[in-house]
Amino acid sequence: MTSRSSQATARTSSEARAVARTQTLLKGKDGIGTVRRTTLPGGLRVVTEALPSVRSATFGIWAHVGSRDETPSLGGATHYLEHLLFKGTKKRSALDISAALDAVGGEMNAFTAKEYTCYYARVLDTDLPLAIDVVCDMLTGSLILQEDVDAERGVILEEIAMTEDDPGDCVHDLFAHTMFGDTPLGRPVLGTVDTVNALTADRIRRFYKKHYDPTHLVVAAAGNIDHATVVRQVRRAFEKAGALSRTDAVPTPPRDGSRALRTAGKVDLLSRRTEQAHVVLGMPGLARTDDRRWALGVLNTALGGGMSSRLFQEVREKRGLAYSVYSYTSSFADTGLFGVYAGCRPNQVHDVLKICRSELDRVASEGLSDEEIRRAVGQLSGSTVLGLEDTGALMNRIGKSELCWGSQMSVDEMLARISAVTPDEVRAVAADVLGQRPSLSVIGPLKDKQADRLHEAVS
Amino acid sequence: MTSRSSQATARTSSEARAVARTQTLLKGKDGIGTVRRTTLPGGLRVVTEALPSVRSATFGIWAHVGSRDETPSLGGATHYLEHLLFKGTKKRSALDISAALDAVGGEMNAFTAKEYTCYYARVLDTDLPLAIDVVCDMLTGSLILQEDVDAERGVILEEIAMTEDDPGDCVHDLFAHTMFGDTPLGRPVLGTVDTVNALTADRIRRFYKKHYDPTHLVVAAAGNIDHATVVRQVRRAFEKAGALSRTDAVPTPPRDGSRALRTAGKVDLLSRRTEQAHVVLGMPGLARTDDRRWALGVLNTALGGGMSSRLFQEVREKRGLAYSVYSYTSSFADTGLFGVYAGCRPNQVHDVLKICRSELDRVASEGLSDEEIRRAVGQLSGSTVLGLEDTGALMNRIGKSELCWGSQMSVDEMLARISAVTPDEVRAVAADVLGQRPSLSVIGPLKDKQADRLHEAVS
Repeated sequence: MTSRSSQATARTSSEARAVARTQTLLKGKDGIGTVRRTTLPGGLRVVTEALPSVRSATFGIWAHVGSRDETPSLGGATHYLEHLLFKGTKKRSALDISAALDAVGGEMNAFTAKEYTCYYARVLDTDLPLAIDVVCDMLTGSLILQEDVDAERGVILEEIAMTEDDPGDCVHDLFAHTMFGDTPLGRPVLGTVDTVNALTADRIRRFYKKHYDPTHLVVAAAGNIDHATVVRQVRRAFEKAGALSRTDAVPTPPRDGSRALRTAGKVDLLSRRTEQAHVVLGMPGLARTDDRRWALGVLNTALGGGMSSRLFQEVREKRGLAYSVYSYTSSFADTGLFGVYAGCRPNQVHDVLKICRSELDRVASEGLSDEEIRRAVGQLSGSTVLGLEDTGALMNRIGKSELCWGSQMSVDEMLARISAVTPDEVRAVAADVLGQRPSLSVIGPLKDKQADRLHEAVS
Repeated sequence: MTSRSSQATARTSSEARAVARTQTLLKGKDGIGTVRRTTLPGGLRVVTEALPSVRSATFGIWAHVGSRDETPSLGGATHYLEHLLFKGTKKRSALDISAALDAVGGEMNAFTAKEYTCYYARVLDTDLPLAIDVVCDMLTGSLILQEDVDAERGVILEEIAMTEDDPGDCVHDLFAHTMFGDTPLGRPVLGTVDTVNALTADRIRRFYKKHYDPTHLVVAAAGNIDHATVVRQVRRAFEKAGALSRTDAVPTPPRDGSRALRTAGKVDLLSRRTEQAHVVLGMPGLARTDDRRWALGVLNTALGGGMSSRLFQEVREKRGLAYSVYSYTSSFADTGLFGVYAGCRPNQVHDVLKICRSELDRVASEGLSDEEIRRAVGQLSGSTVLGLEDTGALMNRIGKSELCWGSQMSVDEMLARISAVTPDEVRAVAADVLGQRPSLSVIGPLKDKQADRLHEAVS
């Protein structure tokens, strides 16, 4: 993403305070769509987008650490740490943290992914100072006490067990393992029972200290907010915690690297006594910065992104073989995945796989019709604009952009990129991505003969 | 709910057209919160709430039919019909229906509950006429062809299998059966494999004809809309289908009745090879119209509605025994349920149940602290106000209110009712509801000895 219309407005608030640098990254219209960034001394970035038509605000902090930053023996540490940040700080107990936001009807939560971790709270605009104070306190002042590590271990083991009980979710973890093997991107975000049991308070504290430096953090706020006020409150909270003392620190740049993923023709079956077989058929996709991602987005939407998509029509609408069938893309700094998910009763799994594979092959060789492309462009554009009314979605977009691209893109530019996708570009990316030999992950009660036949889908 | 500040504005648009009656049910401030209702000849109600600060709109049609209207042999017919309304009309194929909304990035979906069915589309305001045209066409002109019934049967059987694979969802169906037994409220909305296999196109068509009369429907729209324009477009669509010809028809009133639910001390165990045991411990709750529902809402929030709630603190925060633990209420016209859900590994199920039961008993006898009540009131109030920015939530509120109460309540009045709840009222409703002997539903891999001990939780 590119940074447009920027303007540096350095200011010094007192002799003792180092300079903060503020830029207008995107200039909106009618007070909407303006995105500003201030880089505080200590290397902490604060990005905001004002949406004055709402009465709410979402405040989040993104940490530049995910499960791919874990060594094998640290498996699950990023996610474990995310839980522990809710367990108490020098100023607040776990109950104080949750009660503060509950008392105003706020929604506070967090999520850990392979390349980042995000903590956020959605509140009424009048409660934004409270949300800022609590979330900043969690990020800068968590204690990570032995007793909390012990109690929370049980919660995380339950979360792992809960995920195991949801095969439609679990099969995506299996697919990552099929494609990336025993590497950081191939291992589960939650860790395993063994790695979680082996993690100590001391190791998690070191992990926290290393990865939650302000240079690795991006603060993002969206909604009925004022940029300067948010910056002032965040700065005060971080300074109180002594977290902005390295005045010459600079923000960590986005991840980069180019990783060649070449997994092809692999089949993994996890035998389970489920009612449905849950399958993901897929191949290497595109890295987050790949220019072909706009064409792949259109392709993905037309192939398996809605009720009018090819896969939905062929598998569900015409033949009634599945309730849930869709395609998806996931992108990382240096690589990505393209996958098709379906859940169906075991005796239908070969029919479903055959149809999915045949559609993948057909689109790889023929591309899409103009009508399909027109519809997919409309679908992506419409849902992009509809997403603008949700302060949580806005906060996610600007926070993730800052962390992963180091820049922002306006909605108008996104819409222009989507609309500019040509049938030739779609054909080219379909040939590149869908033309690769797929791999397959399955969870279900398949017996020997059925299991042997799974290879047909990837041959 | 009570209808305030109403104003009848009858008008006749032409000699041939019967009179439509329009009332302002709630008068908002600054153009926000005004709810209007027009009753069209044919007995069709149209309710709208304008929110001019957004650029989107959600349009929905509620049908006054749910799975509790099914005889045993019609089990699943309401939900089956919901699927079939997406399969084609005189004017549109299934692909035409889905492509129309996909092409503009709209979200179209439907849900079937025990007492109603709702079809809706969320779109940009400029696409509202399209959404109205498509959804009205589905409701009035669906063909229910034999071949579509056959193809969709497979989809529904897959949906049943998918639900079976999600024990945390499935246990709520089991709990309804534990409490209501083999009655319309106790049977699953989806039906069973047997009842779904037995349903014929002819029976579903008769069910459609009987239950989708305009007198049983409520049209609801919220967002950047104009009431008169929505009414005109809906009227045109229904008139084209010949659906408003019975000019003397009057809308169906809300369901009523008083049903005494007395299930107590029952234990149902569904043995499954899952990782977690999924439990619901609960008792009869309150009917939708019960005046004590505001106090029960506060009680439910404090007991198991957030991270600072009693159950979350006792089960998860202090002891790490579960990842997911919460309480909930569900209300019907004449009865209701109060339940506590937890998912935990099987060797911990007795500890978890003991803690949950002991908190239920303690609150039944002692009520809540003033601090807990203050926090729960804040939580309910804040989340109510935060919900106002979502046109989908607004559409749900006004549509469901019209169908289930026959009236509307302003957000200000809801906030006043929540704030007015006293510690004495909470103590009284806690004694009434939580003081009842609970019943228990469990899905999990419990063996004989563990299974026998389950009775301790309900003794």
